[in-house]
Amino acid sequence: MAGVFAQLDLTPNRLEQARQARAARGDLIDLTSSNPTAQGLLFPPEVLATAAAAYWPARRYRPDPRGDLAAREAVAAYYARRSPPLAVTPDDIFLTASTSEAYSLLFALLADPGDNLLVPNVTYPLFEYLAALRNLELRSYQLDEERDWRINARSLRRAADERTRAILIVSPHNPTGAIVDRHIATLDLLGIPVICDEVFAPFTYGAPATPPLAALHSDLPVFTLNGISKLFALPDLKLGWIALNRPARVFAPRLELLNDTLLGANALSQFLLPTLFAEGEPFVTTMVSRVRANITFALHQFANHPRIHARPPAGGYYLFPAISGWDDEEALALYLLEQGVFVHPGYFYGEVHGCHIMISALSEPALFAAGIERLCAALA
Amino acid sequence: MAGVFAQLDLTPNRLEQARQARAARGDLIDLTSSNPTAQGLLFPPEVLATAAAAYWPARRYRPDPRGDLAAREAVAAYYARRSPPLAVTPDDIFLTASTSEAYSLLFALLADPGDNLLVPNVTYPLFEYLAALRNLELRSYQLDEERDWRINARSLRRAADERTRAILIVSPHNPTGAIVDRHIATLDLLGIPVICDEVFAPFTYGAPATPPLAALHSDLPVFTLNGISKLFALPDLKLGWIALNRPARVFAPRLELLNDTLLGANALSQFLLPTLFAEGEPFVTTMVSRVRANITFALHQFANHPRIHARPPAGGYYLFPAISGWDDEEALALYLLEQGVFVHPGYFYGEVHGCHIMISALSEPALFAAGIERLCAALA
Repeated sequence: MAGVFAQLDLTPNRLEQARQARAARGDLIDLTSSNPTAQGLLFPPEVLATAAAAYWPARRYRPDPRGDLAAREAVAAYYARRSPPLAVTPDDIFLTASTSEAYSLLFALLADPGDNLLVPNVTYPLFEYLAALRNLELRSYQLDEERDWRINARSLRRAADERTRAILIVSPHNPTGAIVDRHIATLDLLGIPVICDEVFAPFTYGAPATPPLAALHSDLPVFTLNGISKLFALPDLKLGWIALNRPARVFAPRLELLNDTLLGANALSQFLLPTLFAEGEPFVTTMVSRVRANITFALHQFANHPRIHARPPAGGYYLFPAISGWDDEEALALYLLEQGVFVHPGYFYGEVHGCHIMISALSEPALFAAGIERLCAALA
Repeated sequence: MAGVFAQLDLTPNRLEQARQARAARGDLIDLTSSNPTAQGLLFPPEVLATAAAAYWPARRYRPDPRGDLAAREAVAAYYARRSPPLAVTPDDIFLTASTSEAYSLLFALLADPGDNLLVPNVTYPLFEYLAALRNLELRSYQLDEERDWRINARSLRRAADERTRAILIVSPHNPTGAIVDRHIATLDLLGIPVICDEVFAPFTYGAPATPPLAALHSDLPVFTLNGISKLFALPDLKLGWIALNRPARVFAPRLELLNDTLLGANALSQFLLPTLFAEGEPFVTTMVSRVRANITFALHQFANHPRIHARPPAGGYYLFPAISGWDDEEALALYLLEQGVFVHPGYFYGEVHGCHIMISALSEPALFAAGIERLCAALA
């Protein structure tokens, strides 16, 4: 049984117990949701129903270790439309059951037990578990809050050693919203393969677009991860992918073998993918507009607040403001819970100076506004 | 990069190259298919279409780390109907993206790098890759051909040591068709958790039924694996599960955490599962009947053949006859290919005394009959 899984204390933590108790009393606004379907953001059901209906009469299982060609063509076309475009062919795309599975395959592809991976501090807490599955060490590099959570190149260099097998970059970043918008000289210097998670790519706020990191670093092996969970708000249909840029192609034959071992991608979801890209744009625009309006509302409410200090994010769908006048994030989260609003304490995502909270701007607008007002009042 | 993946020679092997060349010349009968949808065995499309149509209007993502309750209830009810019944509750069921993913999760749950697992010799070659993903050693225990491929208890005891974390049993066995139909004293003696793959459970031939191993060994932790790929001929829809018997429940909290890390099970496939169990029986009967008729036909053709020596299998959908007069399995497979029939050489599945070939009885009956006749003529 791998590291973190063996060590983990399985008793619910104090905050979760308090949340359950508070929720039972009613009138609790949850500002942490990452589940679009729970917030009324539903990909048009008639589009899904019509496309899926065409699957059943003709269904045949023809497993391809990279995934269905038509689906891979749709993904490659998506990267060609990005700004700047990322030149990938359908052969550079590997379809998986999810981005989590994509991470898991890449960790197996690139690293052996005892090797290490560099991950941002802060970040969402999934990596710890995925790395434990391969007995890999995670090392943190820092993001500089005062530079809009930009990657601290010096800490990146310092964290790398001869057993570093990959650098994980999340852009737009969860939960700070930072987007890597230019070439990072240190990455080229290190020459270590990069895994770039772009699941929030369409969600931009301050930035005009999310440039694919693989296009900014065309001389470095970059594995770009995405999937339909965030992009089309379809976490239930389980489809992710890995896109290899030219220098990463050397890994393709073995990645194919790894993907063939699990063959996790659902054939119906692959069948639907070209339709999602072809017909999903108006829905994606609706989602992005909602998140932008929620962020604008929150930033406006926070603007003159004495204790809530938020920076306009480049993208993503979270806010990660600093809270002054508090020094214990758990005590802060418990206090807010008592006041009827649930946020994540910053330590869920790593360790940074001062107190932070995480707020999701995915929420249904009226609920979000009520939650933000309650938060502002509680901290006034 | 893990063991077997790093070492693997990725150039196609001689047999595969020869198969492609021979297939290009036409009139090649492939007797190796494990893909029901390629053999005309299609779960009634109208049942799937009707059930799936109900999903879209109401779809909401409510991830449960064990899987949808209604689906788990249907699985628990299936085990209650088995003979003998296996007493499991919905809480003992974990839904996964496939049995491959189920194996992968259990390997992470039970073992650390350097630990070992016991696997049958012979068996299908997936385990090598799945074990490599966790840097685990595989150790073989023997099946006795002259005792209808029964597990050799002495070799099982000899293979186990203090780093053995699980014993893998496939029942009905792939490719020999052996079914474990009684308590194995050695398993209790060893006290090591057992992973039992029952994906061929409905396919019986000589045996009246496949008794769940977990019911035969109710004092030992047994993880039973199955899924819709073989059971309902739906490999495209990607749904597997793990059923824990009572002594295995101690592992449930950590297995839940592992499953929550990947959350691989597709929600639509989970939604369909109760319908598959409720309406799939006539189709399963059709499949089982076809396989039985094909096996009967082949055994009849082999009965007086001077070189083909087949034993009636207890179950499964393969035959694994010994071929006399040959001592090189690859030369034999290449010769048969030249004669227009493709079979797997025995070494694909391990090492046993003498020459063997693997034949799938899933094939479309007319094609199967023609292939068997061609095989008999070629070896006469």
